[in-house]
Amino acid sequence: MSDAKLQGVLSALSQTARQLDAVPSSQAGPDADCVKLDTNENPFPLPIAVMRTALTALKRHYLYPEDDNFSLREAAANAYGLSQDQVIAGNGSSELLGLLYRAFLAPGDSVAMMSPGFSFNRKLAMLQGARFLEIGWGKAYSLPIEQLLLGPPKDAKFILLANPNNPSGTFVPVADIDKLAAQSDRLIVLDEAYVDFAPDDALRLINRHSNLLILRTFSKSYAAAGIRVGFGFGHPELIGRLRNIQNLFNMNLIAHAVGISILSHRAAYAENHKHIKHERQRTMVALSELGFSVIPSYANFLLARVPSGQNGAWWQASLKRQKVLVAVFPDDGLENHIRVSIGTKAQMDKFLSAAGDISESLKTQRLPVTRR
Amino acid sequence: MSDAKLQGVLSALSQTARQLDAVPSSQAGPDADCVKLDTNENPFPLPIAVMRTALTALKRHYLYPEDDNFSLREAAANAYGLSQDQVIAGNGSSELLGLLYRAFLAPGDSVAMMSPGFSFNRKLAMLQGARFLEIGWGKAYSLPIEQLLLGPPKDAKFILLANPNNPSGTFVPVADIDKLAAQSDRLIVLDEAYVDFAPDDALRLINRHSNLLILRTFSKSYAAAGIRVGFGFGHPELIGRLRNIQNLFNMNLIAHAVGISILSHRAAYAENHKHIKHERQRTMVALSELGFSVIPSYANFLLARVPSGQNGAWWQASLKRQKVLVAVFPDDGLENHIRVSIGTKAQMDKFLSAAGDISESLKTQRLPVTRR
Repeated sequence: MSDAKLQGVLSALSQTARQLDAVPSSQAGPDADCVKLDTNENPFPLPIAVMRTALTALKRHYLYPEDDNFSLREAAANAYGLSQDQVIAGNGSSELLGLLYRAFLAPGDSVAMMSPGFSFNRKLAMLQGARFLEIGWGKAYSLPIEQLLLGPPKDAKFILLANPNNPSGTFVPVADIDKLAAQSDRLIVLDEAYVDFAPDDALRLINRHSNLLILRTFSKSYAAAGIRVGFGFGHPELIGRLRNIQNLFNMNLIAHAVGISILSHRAAYAENHKHIKHERQRTMVALSELGFSVIPSYANFLLARVPSGQNGAWWQASLKRQKVLVAVFPDDGLENHIRVSIGTKAQMDKFLSAAGDISESLKTQRLPVTRR
Repeated sequence: MSDAKLQGVLSALSQTARQLDAVPSSQAGPDADCVKLDTNENPFPLPIAVMRTALTALKRHYLYPEDDNFSLREAAANAYGLSQDQVIAGNGSSELLGLLYRAFLAPGDSVAMMSPGFSFNRKLAMLQGARFLEIGWGKAYSLPIEQLLLGPPKDAKFILLANPNNPSGTFVPVADIDKLAAQSDRLIVLDEAYVDFAPDDALRLINRHSNLLILRTFSKSYAAAGIRVGFGFGHPELIGRLRNIQNLFNMNLIAHAVGISILSHRAAYAENHKHIKHERQRTMVALSELGFSVIPSYANFLLARVPSGQNGAWWQASLKRQKVLVAVFPDDGLENHIRVSIGTKAQMDKFLSAAGDISESLKTQRLPVTRR
């Protein structure tokens, strides 16, 4: 194989793609025997009616999915009181985030995100050759509206924030988002992935602000991360342009069927959401008793500062040895934190028991440790 | 809602996206009571083992799909005698086509496609602001190698061809593709969507030419258009860069499970492929008897020139009135052609019966028609 030829092919890549290293061969995921509390999934069964719909849809495997996700978009519009042309449906909200970056950002442009936030956005900006401005949250994770209006974000192509925020779990009043959208002339992209665990949402603002785009996903509150269903809600002129650049047949027919069925059975999740809020509270109290400092959360996870002496990565590794997976964010100024998803009671018992054991072993080791 | 604000948001779109009109609200697909022979689906059940795997996978709905499609890529590598880093897996091969355009084409660049070909490529080029060079096939749909080496395509970022070709159904010898890849310094993207209905394939060339990328899909020969499973095979340095710019969790876990299971049960499709080739032959003969001129096909469809007197669009409309859907390609110099997918015997009977009725009614109307 001619190496010169390969170099020629690679040099034909776009300027941004050329600068990327090839991804090395990946590996299979972690063992199935771990309690998985690292990616904020919702480990509960789908409502039986939703499962039945999925099984029926599977029989149509040989047919292409519906063009432009029509029925799913219509169902979402009806469920949320919008018109169909205000809705785009995605292979998870991550696909829709990618579309936004591709639609708005050329090399040299900038995008702003409230930070710490969903770090995948950093990669999306890099893939466009765009500058990624990280704007720190205000005191107690409040929205620094003035800074967003007058600071560097005023030149960003769009401003991203999540409410509730990930990984902090904090929630800003919808009135603040209303104010930001009203006073800013930038596009505000509001990720409401975790909103079903929070006391309010911003959907009512969609008809008020043409510069507000809201993202939702069924990966968290609706227990369908593996199916890939996400939505974007916004002005028809913007939504139509995003649909225009979307991949042909971006969702499969199982995702269509499950999405439509979940929209009809949202009430069936009330118990599930109640359970998660209850376990969230119980876990927060228990972690506090172990010396963690836990930020009150409005999502299905907790961000907890670990007790002094060891950092987040150490706790993550220690928990992993006990077959419990949690997330850490060393690149976001959160070296001393872990994020733990809220799952079933049994999962949280296992996590708390492991955290208790580790905490206990630290106490017995404390003397030797401080001696060094 | 402030219109000025909306205009501000739209003006922040990239130069290419700004030039697009918003897609208007779409509509639901055609009635389910039609015989659908317009998109080359394969209307046969999946092997029972594959269906079982899908049902099992559905129970893991709440978990994110495996990162980077590891197990599916590994299964494809094993099935096709490649290494895992030579394989990228996509939400249909359409996603992989989109990745190629994004990786290689900036505004003003050009891409070349053998024409008539898969017209979706025109849109993909437009979305990048790239020039789309359509290179006519040689005599009897042969590959014009000299023209690809010396004509305008020599400056294209990549050259696209499908073998068998869509919509012609024709097939060029793999030796010609070998020669083209050897002599060209361009990336050659070879779409083998229909290759399982043909006498040969080019996979053995992958280890010989670093400038050859082959696309495959399970939408046609493996009856899984609704599940969205496609592959790209090529040099690890290129494949790794495409994986790099791919959407996070681009396939759902049903697509993973079905893809892996189909790879283990390819032999179970032998009867299905035999049936399609048989019906293809029978339909070709019957259409010829009705006065159509049919190009011998190596795919699961036939491109047929309609009898003189009426064009392809007229036949398409007439067949639709009889609840049979076929495709036409007026923008590709094929105004007098229809393309009919090969389905079940019952579907082809219905199609041939409708075509016969239309043909008959034309004969009885011929006198008045010619008088005008």
